[in-house]
Amino acid sequence: MVPPLRIGLLGLGVVGSAVARALIDKADLLTHRVGRPLELRRVLIRDASKPRSIDPSLISANADDILDDPETDLIVEVMGGEQPAHDYIVRALRAGKHVVTANKEVMAKHGPEILAIAAERGVDISFEASVGGGIPVIGPFKLDLLANEIDEIRAIINGTTNYILTRMATDGTDFGTALAEAQKLGYAEADPRNDIEGIDAAYKLAILGSLAFHTVVRPSDVFHEGISGLAPADFRYARELGYAVKLLAIGRANDGAVELHVHPALIPQTEMLAKVDGVFNAVTVRGDLVGNILFYGRGAGAGPTSSAVIADIVDLAHRTMEGTARVRPPAYDDRYRFRPMDEVCTRYYLRLLAADQPGVFAQITQALGDARISLASVIQKQNVLIGDPAVEYAEIVLMTHEAVEAPMQRAIRAVASLPAVHSIGSLIRVEP
Amino acid sequence: MVPPLRIGLLGLGVVGSAVARALIDKADLLTHRVGRPLELRRVLIRDASKPRSIDPSLISANADDILDDPETDLIVEVMGGEQPAHDYIVRALRAGKHVVTANKEVMAKHGPEILAIAAERGVDISFEASVGGGIPVIGPFKLDLLANEIDEIRAIINGTTNYILTRMATDGTDFGTALAEAQKLGYAEADPRNDIEGIDAAYKLAILGSLAFHTVVRPSDVFHEGISGLAPADFRYARELGYAVKLLAIGRANDGAVELHVHPALIPQTEMLAKVDGVFNAVTVRGDLVGNILFYGRGAGAGPTSSAVIADIVDLAHRTMEGTARVRPPAYDDRYRFRPMDEVCTRYYLRLLAADQPGVFAQITQALGDARISLASVIQKQNVLIGDPAVEYAEIVLMTHEAVEAPMQRAIRAVASLPAVHSIGSLIRVEP
Repeated sequence: MVPPLRIGLLGLGVVGSAVARALIDKADLLTHRVGRPLELRRVLIRDASKPRSIDPSLISANADDILDDPETDLIVEVMGGEQPAHDYIVRALRAGKHVVTANKEVMAKHGPEILAIAAERGVDISFEASVGGGIPVIGPFKLDLLANEIDEIRAIINGTTNYILTRMATDGTDFGTALAEAQKLGYAEADPRNDIEGIDAAYKLAILGSLAFHTVVRPSDVFHEGISGLAPADFRYARELGYAVKLLAIGRANDGAVELHVHPALIPQTEMLAKVDGVFNAVTVRGDLVGNILFYGRGAGAGPTSSAVIADIVDLAHRTMEGTARVRPPAYDDRYRFRPMDEVCTRYYLRLLAADQPGVFAQITQALGDARISLASVIQKQNVLIGDPAVEYAEIVLMTHEAVEAPMQRAIRAVASLPAVHSIGSLIRVEP
Repeated sequence: MVPPLRIGLLGLGVVGSAVARALIDKADLLTHRVGRPLELRRVLIRDASKPRSIDPSLISANADDILDDPETDLIVEVMGGEQPAHDYIVRALRAGKHVVTANKEVMAKHGPEILAIAAERGVDISFEASVGGGIPVIGPFKLDLLANEIDEIRAIINGTTNYILTRMATDGTDFGTALAEAQKLGYAEADPRNDIEGIDAAYKLAILGSLAFHTVVRPSDVFHEGISGLAPADFRYARELGYAVKLLAIGRANDGAVELHVHPALIPQTEMLAKVDGVFNAVTVRGDLVGNILFYGRGAGAGPTSSAVIADIVDLAHRTMEGTARVRPPAYDDRYRFRPMDEVCTRYYLRLLAADQPGVFAQITQALGDARISLASVIQKQNVLIGDPAVEYAEIVLMTHEAVEAPMQRAIRAVASLPAVHSIGSLIRVEP
């Protein structure tokens, strides 16, 4: 029998507990399928006083016990957050241990350096669970899609926001109520900023973008805008226009540049992505050979994430047996410059409230026209009464033709400053 | 520089030409990404007199030139069909060459033997392109899902039939017209039986089922029923009832048995699978950890298939460099018996034509009730005039509760033999 792969687990939260449970409960099945036992040797916890369901002799609150243990082959990091996870990963690699991590923040911020350290030390680092939970998305880029020139990724990669948007779309719930509900169900954290502001999705897009475009992508290269400004009305209008509203992570390469942005977007209801509801995630990729493909599944949670973590462990178990468990340093082309958000070109949905007076609509189209933004369609909606009963307001919804972001933003400021315009309700980009 | 991986290509049809073109046109990109040149050394063609767009010195009509060439490391088989492809694959493996194949028929019928030969000779065989074109579906079973107990696969894995069914659903086209159109567009072959009778999908399900259930599945273990019996009316009724009609490949494991069947099925319009239209394919998998995941994309065609073939070549190029290009023999559990179709339990949609007379409906429910089949819903449709104007017929559509296949089939024969029943229009299984 091949000796076991000895695993040190950092973190025993929701994901860590599921990984530990799978390694213990499925030990026989995994040994059979892998051809080698996977032995859970040590588990790092934060609070040693909390009762745990696993063998207390495995547990330690001291990271050194695990990171300095010469009998541990592989460190599995499922603590989350940048620190101390980043330090521990680097320490483990430098000590010649392989690493499996589910940490999107660490991989997005420090991925290239971590891969370089692993390459230098001749060890492996895998991070399939960092994006899309149990959906295989990292693996396909590393191998299955390698013959392709990829020019587009579009993804729903944050389950929290997709749950909130699904609630708003189906029940007319407002953002605050939907968020509170997501928090109650455990889909959103007490401090939900990372999710609702698109930061979590931007980390994941940085990871996917690096792989898809063979270019080092930093989180700072990814524009992000959150969902808290969306109103129930936007979902109603979008539906009438044949669109769904989703928080999309978009990576696109053309004309020697790559653009990466996370923001709410209107997408046609006929697209598969529009049908991804609740906490589900989906990633679509377009390659010159393969055309459009899509991966769909639960993007978070104990089961899916542990499924991906254990797949990485299994791969490592195979490769250590074969003596080839060394990271393959990514072959960056670095062919692309980054296109700043200001230069990104897209269509826009605009909802605003303006005084219902003659000439107001002409002023708005004039302000847009001055910035060379032309309208594709206009929906003037019923009058709205706000404050002063002497002034009647109308809610106006516009769709523009393709426009560049910077002039569009200038035009919006011009529109907002018109005396007859009460307020800009929302400005949402439209895909494709 | 690492020496090139030298490739012998068997077949220069649609897929073979695309593979050759990608290897030649993308040589620099692939060398950079793989870390090793991929050299197209020889190409087997059937008809040497036909003009070709690739270097004539590479071409041969004699398989021995390629299979006996000691300078060839890898044979890529994209001829299709059982013979001579099967012989060539076995010859190549026995000669110590690695093999990449897109051949579902050979892998479905002879996969276990071929894997055993490769293992014995210490070479590798890959077949990602045999199912789902460029969608990564084989890889995920071999690695990403390995920690899961999979209890269900449901797949749309034949683009020809999905194109025909989409046409029938959207335009009310009848089967013959939709088939002729698919043939005109090159989506269906002159002899379309393999596709429309579900044989092609059954091959693919045998391959997926072996991987998902860790059990040797033979094509004869897979029940299949085609789509030629479907009428435009079925699509109309299905839509009214909230369903789409798809040719589904289903694998399901429970109670120590696995069942595998390919047939038209009604699936709820809310399911992602119901939205897979045209020549697209999709595979859903349910695992105990990962939950439901879905892979979607073009299941056939030159680009997608060559994308998967080259991914397999790239993997092999890596692994030969590392000295680990040996097939990992699958770890079969063989825990399951096969449940014959007669014992499969499902709901049914039944459309029939009966005389519009008092008591007829009671006779039908009696015949079904005798076999312990109970009705979930009944739609009696408008009267139809057939032949004899003295007799009025009514089209009746029924949905049953769950029933077992054998008694259901007996009940249908009993219903069909009722004097008042003109004909059974169709019997379609309902998912889930």
